Amino acid sequence: MYQQINEILTKIRNDRPVILNITNEVSMDFVANGLLSVGASPIMSKAMSECSDLLKIASAVVINIGTLNDAFIELSHHVCHEANRLGIPITLDPVGAGASNYRTKACHDLLEQFHIAIIRGNAGEIMALSGIPQNTKGVDSTVTTDKAIEHAQKLSAAHQVLVTISGKTDAIIDINHVRVVDRGAALMPRITGSGCLLSAIISTFDAMHSHRHSAVSAAALFYSVCGEIAARTAKAPGSFKVHFIDALSFTPQSNDYD
Amino acid sequence: MYQQINEILTKIRNDRPVILNITNEVSMDFVANGLLSVGASPIMSKAMSECSDLLKIASAVVINIGTLNDAFIELSHHVCHEANRLGIPITLDPVGAGASNYRTKACHDLLEQFHIAIIRGNAGEIMALSGIPQNTKGVDSTVTTDKAIEHAQKLSAAHQVLVTISGKTDAIIDINHVRVVDRGAALMPRITGSGCLLSAIISTFDAMHSHRHSAVSAAALFYSVCGEIAARTAKAPGSFKVHFIDALSFTPQSNDYD
Amino acid sequence: MYQQINEILTKIRNDRPVILNITNEVSMDFVANGLLSVGASPIMSKAMSECSDLLKIASAVVINIGTLNDAFIELSHHVCHEANRLGIPITLDPVGAGASNYRTKACHDLLEQFHIAIIRGNAGEIMALSGIPQNTKGVDSTVTTDKAIEHAQKLSAAHQVLVTISGKTDAIIDINHVRVVDRGAALMPRITGSGCLLSAIISTFDAMHSHRHSAVSAAALFYSVCGEIAARTAKAPGSFKVHFIDALSFTPQSNDYD
Repeated sequence: MYQQINEILTKIRNDRPVILNITNEVSMDFVANGLLSVGASPIMSKAMSECSDLLKIASAVVINIGTLNDAFIELSHHVCHEANRLGIPITLDPVGAGASNYRTKACHDLLEQFHIAIIRGNAGEIMALSGIPQNTKGVDSTVTTDKAIEHAQKLSAAHQVLVTISGKTDAIIDINHVRVVDRGAALMPRITGSGCLLSAIISTFDAMHSHRHSAVSAAALFYSVCGEIAARTAKAPGSFKVHFIDALSFTPQSNDYD
Repeated sequence: MYQQINEILTKIRNDRPVILNITNEVSMDFVANGLLSVGASPIMSKAMSECSDLLKIASAVVINIGTLNDAFIELSHHVCHEANRLGIPITLDPVGAGASNYRTKACHDLLEQFHIAIIRGNAGEIMALSGIPQNTKGVDSTVTTDKAIEHAQKLSAAHQVLVTISGKTDAIIDINHVRVVDRGAALMPRITGSGCLLSAIISTFDAMHSHRHSAVSAAALFYSVCGEIAARTAKAPGSFKVHFIDALSFTPQSNDYD
Repeated sequence: MYQQINEILTKIRNDRPVILNITNEVSMDFVANGLLSVGASPIMSKAMSECSDLLKIASAVVINIGTLNDAFIELSHHVCHEANRLGIPITLDPVGAGASNYRTKACHDLLEQFHIAIIRGNAGEIMALSGIPQNTKGVDSTVTTDKAIEHAQKLSAAHQVLVTISGKTDAIIDINHVRVVDRGAALMPRITGSGCLLSAIISTFDAMHSHRHSAVSAAALFYSVCGEIAARTAKAPGSFKVHFIDALSFTPQSNDYD
């Protein structure tokens, strides 16, 4: 997969695809910096009136419900409608699904009314979307990836959506494939928005490659390996975050994947 | 107090309490990262419709008015009403009280209509809440902590609220106690949200310990000592912020408190 | 110009001017930290009801449309009206002008209805404001500064506004002067909000000095040199951002400008 990651990274850095983010206010800065670092061109929008224009130049859309409210939901529906019409792939990040019915329902409504290409959530969020009641810790997961895989497969089949479960172990799931990526760094869940940024990077890789499951698998592995590279020098969350953004700007070497 | 801080830190890292933040858009990212680093599980919300659900899993609520508007005020009232009903302690951060009547009034309304457990502000903000006209520099204080202590005592008595004044010197004040913490680093006010994050950490410590004044005093001392640890290596605001988030993730040693 | 930069920096650090930011949610944290680092006192507001009060203590206003919506536009009009009445200079950052008609029109409306003192945008944004259709990459420019200078001169003449084009080369333009600053670091456009913060720093320098074109030229040179200082040690965007905020807190030496 090393070769494929490099090809996609080269393409991102040449094309600088515009990624439209309808996203939360907590990790906006981190996601924008991560996308810029990897080579993409992020844009964030809060306005219904400009989404048609922005979609004309966008290669992908990320909907992240981290700080949703009624206005956000209305905007997300509008953007999904337009993106579906134009054939622009949508990635959904169901932040905190299960922590409130409002979040769970907002995701279900999007999945039922629009074609979502990719969902990326932690195991708890994926379980919640699958209808399994959760003892959540808010936006942090309390279940492991392997417990959610079966549910993710059903979710994938029901909505023709690729599901990525991230956590200590990642799993990339569609109707035909389950790929497990068992890499990454323990500090990753200790920085805010590490899931949000993964969703955005997955969306970027997907926009640059014709085969969705391969592209998302490549993104997840690249992201985990960047985490490992950052963790070689950083031993706490503040410096880890800095080194992680740094790592995204480079191309990992072949032996980084060993 | 060293022993007590360690016990509370251990409890935070075992329990990972969910802290619900109804907060400003400037320091959301920093506060979330700080709470994650210390071991808590932050969640930020902007939606009336989900607050009852989120309060079911929350150990504490922080209301921070840094970028308030009418929708924020309505949301904060709703959350305070529910939190009071459920007995979940509320910490109020009156960012910029005194800089506009709108901010001062928003805080007074909360104090009059709900039971606020803790207020954490700089000396200027505490003076403004006490009705003393301020020559403010916006969100930055121009008065010293000692000048505000007497007013904080009255505020505490009037609203049965613990008041923390932070600044070069911190003071933790309730009807029976005034504790002064004269520690910390000169770079702390040079990073955005250092007050906001202190409010959130105070709220977390308070949620993990039965005696409020002790818990808040422990939080203030821990926070100041983390600032001192960060300032040992960082000499400017950018790197100070990184090292400070790092420091929050560790347990200071006994001699760090000397 | 070295001497003048130092004088303005000294004045900022003595006076700590309050800079009122009506700004986007992506770079709020970065802009606030940058302003604090250079020595100013930032305040961000989202509420119509408090702007009159905040303007009483503000030395300058920055309007940054990065995440505009209808409520933002209404607020920006209200603030510009009041700032004009009080003679407080307004800096406009037309983030993403050209990427959507909504953004371009929002800027035109402000320029036509109010006196804007300074515009700071990248070449693509300035071209878009001048009515030249753009092939934009969202908020990132695809044209070079020299191509936009002529258009900036017309824009400056039409609205009595100083125009700063930033990019690999910066140009500071009013009716009588064009100053080109050919300094800075390649990593600057790789961090989110580097343009936003430049607008805020320009606004701060302008508030501290009677001659606008000199003040803005000094700000642009200082900012670029801080970028160069940061790039001496940082080789990737994450650490560059940290070192850049650090650099803003110091006073560059004479030979840093060589």
